[in-house]
Amino acid sequence: MAQPQAGTGTSRRAFLRNVGLTGGAGAMFATMGALGLAPTAQAAQREQPFRAPQSGDFTLSGRGAAKVVIVGGGIAGLAAAYELGKAGYDCTVLEARDRTGGRNFTVRGGDSTTDLNGNKQTARFSDGEYMNAGPARLPQWMVTLDYCRELGVPVEVFTNTNADAYIFNESAGMTKPMRYRTAKADVYGYVSEFLAKATDKGALDAQLTTADQERLIEFLKDFGELGDKLDYEGGPRRGYTTVPAAAGTPGVLLGDVPSASEVFATGVGRYFSFEFEFDQAMLMFQPVGGMDRIPKALTKAIGEHRVRTGAAVTKITDRGDGVTVTYTQGGRTHTVDADYCIAATPPNILAKVPHNLGSGVQSALEAITPQSAGKIGLEYKSRWWELDHHIYGGITETDLDVSHIWHPSYGYHGERGLMIGYYNYDEDADSYAALTPKEREKRAVAAGVKIYGEKYRTELASSFSHHWRQTPYLEAAWHDTPDGPDHPRYKPLNEPTGRVYFAGDWLSYTDAWQHGAFMSARKAVTALHARVLAS
Amino acid sequence: MAQPQAGTGTSRRAFLRNVGLTGGAGAMFATMGALGLAPTAQAAQREQPFRAPQSGDFTLSGRGAAKVVIVGGGIAGLAAAYELGKAGYDCTVLEARDRTGGRNFTVRGGDSTTDLNGNKQTARFSDGEYMNAGPARLPQWMVTLDYCRELGVPVEVFTNTNADAYIFNESAGMTKPMRYRTAKADVYGYVSEFLAKATDKGALDAQLTTADQERLIEFLKDFGELGDKLDYEGGPRRGYTTVPAAAGTPGVLLGDVPSASEVFATGVGRYFSFEFEFDQAMLMFQPVGGMDRIPKALTKAIGEHRVRTGAAVTKITDRGDGVTVTYTQGGRTHTVDADYCIAATPPNILAKVPHNLGSGVQSALEAITPQSAGKIGLEYKSRWWELDHHIYGGITETDLDVSHIWHPSYGYHGERGLMIGYYNYDEDADSYAALTPKEREKRAVAAGVKIYGEKYRTELASSFSHHWRQTPYLEAAWHDTPDGPDHPRYKPLNEPTGRVYFAGDWLSYTDAWQHGAFMSARKAVTALHARVLAS
Repeated sequence: MAQPQAGTGTSRRAFLRNVGLTGGAGAMFATMGALGLAPTAQAAQREQPFRAPQSGDFTLSGRGAAKVVIVGGGIAGLAAAYELGKAGYDCTVLEARDRTGGRNFTVRGGDSTTDLNGNKQTARFSDGEYMNAGPARLPQWMVTLDYCRELGVPVEVFTNTNADAYIFNESAGMTKPMRYRTAKADVYGYVSEFLAKATDKGALDAQLTTADQERLIEFLKDFGELGDKLDYEGGPRRGYTTVPAAAGTPGVLLGDVPSASEVFATGVGRYFSFEFEFDQAMLMFQPVGGMDRIPKALTKAIGEHRVRTGAAVTKITDRGDGVTVTYTQGGRTHTVDADYCIAATPPNILAKVPHNLGSGVQSALEAITPQSAGKIGLEYKSRWWELDHHIYGGITETDLDVSHIWHPSYGYHGERGLMIGYYNYDEDADSYAALTPKEREKRAVAAGVKIYGEKYRTELASSFSHHWRQTPYLEAAWHDTPDGPDHPRYKPLNEPTGRVYFAGDWLSYTDAWQHGAFMSARKAVTALHARVLAS
Repeated sequence: MAQPQAGTGTSRRAFLRNVGLTGGAGAMFATMGALGLAPTAQAAQREQPFRAPQSGDFTLSGRGAAKVVIVGGGIAGLAAAYELGKAGYDCTVLEARDRTGGRNFTVRGGDSTTDLNGNKQTARFSDGEYMNAGPARLPQWMVTLDYCRELGVPVEVFTNTNADAYIFNESAGMTKPMRYRTAKADVYGYVSEFLAKATDKGALDAQLTTADQERLIEFLKDFGELGDKLDYEGGPRRGYTTVPAAAGTPGVLLGDVPSASEVFATGVGRYFSFEFEFDQAMLMFQPVGGMDRIPKALTKAIGEHRVRTGAAVTKITDRGDGVTVTYTQGGRTHTVDADYCIAATPPNILAKVPHNLGSGVQSALEAITPQSAGKIGLEYKSRWWELDHHIYGGITETDLDVSHIWHPSYGYHGERGLMIGYYNYDEDADSYAALTPKEREKRAVAAGVKIYGEKYRTELASSFSHHWRQTPYLEAAWHDTPDGPDHPRYKPLNEPTGRVYFAGDWLSYTDAWQHGAFMSARKAVTALHARVLAS
């Protein structure tokens, strides 16, 4: 948690008394936690002790809110300005791009980008269609959902898992896709058969009591849909070629149950654990209408007059009693003087900005390396995946260079729809980024045709691709922080350096998630506010 | 599929020719399938060959649309009237209750019911809050979604599974609930450990090649989050007490990984296979605003003037050249004369209506037995499950007599919310049905408090309970059809008896699902229409 600068005993007590007066006992406890005075490990699941600064905090302390310049209008920067603004801090956000949100970027018809390779694209998506080029999903436990609630951004389910979506591993020899439900039935079936029979033969006698073994076998029979002889022989969970209907139509089961050897050779099971991950398990959510509803709401709450877009920072100078940030906007050079600065740009970008913060800061920034990822949005003239495949959302997993294909989590039964034709990383992303947008489309569509058939090509209306490593002023989808964010190497970033604080998902344990940006911003805000109150 | 009455060769050809002219080759093929002339087993997953009657069907045949009286305004009856109406049939729907939809019943503030025990309730739910007392979820493959598309009923995700929902098996000694994600991590972890180690020790040497065993172990290490020594020792999938956040807060893992014996003793694994079932696997959907959007849209499409509510049928007479249906409405007796009748009421209700359709019909109806189920809607003054538990939808499973507790799949982040406090069957449902509504609430809330704590009681605003076995004119949640709907015993129901056709989910392989009602209605409509065209 935040480690505020040491203040006088008096001002600390005054601060805490004040919090007690305005926020009640709960806020008092949370703030004590934030100050390192109370244990926090037993807090409820998502609760991190955080108490937003409030204007009342200054009432008894006799202090006033300070002026803060925030470098970067992504989620961390916006969150910092938003939280500080609650206490009346005079914040200025400098954002190099023409919009706030950073990697939170929703592409709609008419939006344009030019990447570092010079590819200019303008999206031709229909009204109501959008792609979240950056973050797209919110687990229930992440603080991002709290901000959606607080900001009045409505949410809906993001379909991260779908039993009817496909798996296609071409390199394993699969010639057609298999539905998740079928793959799971087969893998779980054989795993259950093997373990039930081994248990039955005494393989677990040394580890489990007879009663435990009986419970295990009972579970496995149900889990694997095993027959009385503990054999897996397929069943309804795999699916049907003709679904059960009226009398006369009991349904025709999907035939040709593969052998265990065939099942494990396909490698379909490698995708199952995704949905058990702490940050990926359903239920997942998304803002209705696009992820950028969050930065838009934050920007509005901060006050648009406090946010300067097209403002590329060229220098950060700690003056001892304040900070001066130099930036260019519209071809002219400007400066902002403030009491404090929060640097909330990606480390790879910040490392290129001249500063006087010392070599420790610079080497820490340079140790963190940018990573690649890309997405392509494919708008279709029909929702053929619903009509022909009965797939309403979810992700199809492949071993092709497109990696993940996303079905839309909105607009069900609409006239048109927008698929994510690839969401890939690393070399796959880099290889697509090296192509022109038209070539990317062609390659992505060719991959999709292998899975979904010719409509993947013939129904296509338009596409838009986005690669973060090639995006100006960001140049990364996320970052690799060797040894984790608490390695001593990053100490100059995790503490304020002079009057400059640092914030971003890259300074968190949930890199690439907005949660990390929000929590890092909260940490910086808490420390800065405590320092101001204690100064 | 439907077996139409034999017609003359000429009229059959005329019919098919006509279909070919109006519907194209696809419709021709589908209709041939419906007539038993073409193979249909290889049809795509949900497609059942069905071609809705069209007014053009009569153009060349020289026939005219007939008059049809439909007994029962549930989904089957409404669907039959809707489909026949497309070809201009003159349909009259007689519905005993004061609204259409049958067991498709959405309860909102102001709605009143009186059950067979004399309990009168009026729902006091807030605006926007509702409970689907009957069907509540739609799998992607069911035809119900097609009707939603066709009728313009928007759909959204129904949250049938949630990693953050709870499992609570009191009888197994659990003293507090466990999240699904934790239960899965533990069960899958130990299953993987046991099978990986057994495989490693040669237990599968007779069944699998070395290469297959390596693939299996690779899968199990990932599936069970096993360590290098193939041990399960917990991990992030179980969850955290403090979630990962900014630098300084790596997160604190949920501690106390239970032993395998403890895990299997809890019986938590018994709930996992639910989500693999063909009709329950996510993704699931619901109409936005309540399931009764479907019967409301059907009723509107049919024409409200064709639907008589409060019309309890008292007699069905097949006259040879037509059918006369007698009913009471507002204390008076009326009759409808029609060319045909579709009886689309539950079998237990129909069995009580005098008719001249023969003892075969009567004994078939009486062989099918009604089943019990109940639900209680609990409206809360706050969405404490989101605020305190970070649970956004999904089902908590219990071994208590409330069985299933549903979190709402709509209204996320709203001020209020409506939980389903119990969804139970059989004896559990009957025992709750025997209580007064206030007693039901008290008992259900006491159960929920064990899982969620005191807010389950203190935040409660109001409740409404509904039990289908005790609901007039329905008296069943669903039905048990011994030996399945195609047993010869039910032949008089699966074929028209004279001029009376039968339809309902109880004459399908998806009893208790609207899909079964729709598909059964389609079957009756197809047969009736072919007979009219061929007559």
